Amino acid sequence: MSIASTPQPPYVAVIFTSLRTTVDEGYALTSAEMVSMAGGQPGFLGIESARGADGLGITVSYWKDMDSVRAWKSVSEHRMAQKLGRERWYRAYRTRVCVVEREYGFSL
Amino acid sequence: MSIASTPQPPYVAVIFTSLRTTVDEGYALTSAEMVSMAGGQPGFLGIESARGADGLGITVSYWKDMDSVRAWKSVSEHRMAQKLGRERWYRAYRTRVCVVEREYGFSL
Repeated sequence: MSIASTPQPPYVAVIFTSLRTTVDEGYALTSAEMVSMAGGQPGFLGIESARGADGLGITVSYWKDMDSVRAWKSVSEHRMAQKLGRERWYRAYRTRVCVVEREYGFSL
Repeated sequence: MSIASTPQPPYVAVIFTSLRTTVDEGYALTSAEMVSMAGGQPGFLGIESARGADGLGITVSYWKDMDSVRAWKSVSEHRMAQKLGRERWYRAYRTRVCVVEREYGFSL
């Protein structure tokens, strides 16, 4: 995974921070499917994801606007994954929906 | 590290996504110092950080307002760390400054 190439702000970032349970059943497959499906949604701009050795995971997805975020949240396969997430895979999570106001960076 | 306990939105999130070089010199110490210093800054609300096995790292720090973010960005030790980051530790990074508009979560 690499750093997402996003357009000039403003656009929307959804920060999903999670702590996993020890249950793996279906997790890797569903997780990969959700990344793939998100990438095909209208308004999708990019995604970045990392899970550290201590179990904390952060996934940030970037979207054109709030309508795109709402539409993706309500896609039926995604709703099913959210349900399974609460039932099986996550001890806790937090989702924060944000407007990106400025960005800057550096690359060798 | 755990999921940050943040107040009712709005507040500010700074998403720092990075790819490391293979240079470790001073990295772990400076990184820990910056997390510790940020925690003592006015307006600091919390921090979450993860680096995956593929080398992509995401650190999100949360702040009361934009003034707190600007003040932390200009702290001299932090400016020195940013400079060393560009010179030594990072192949690329991207910083996105965002206003969190809503959040929701789940916990067992």
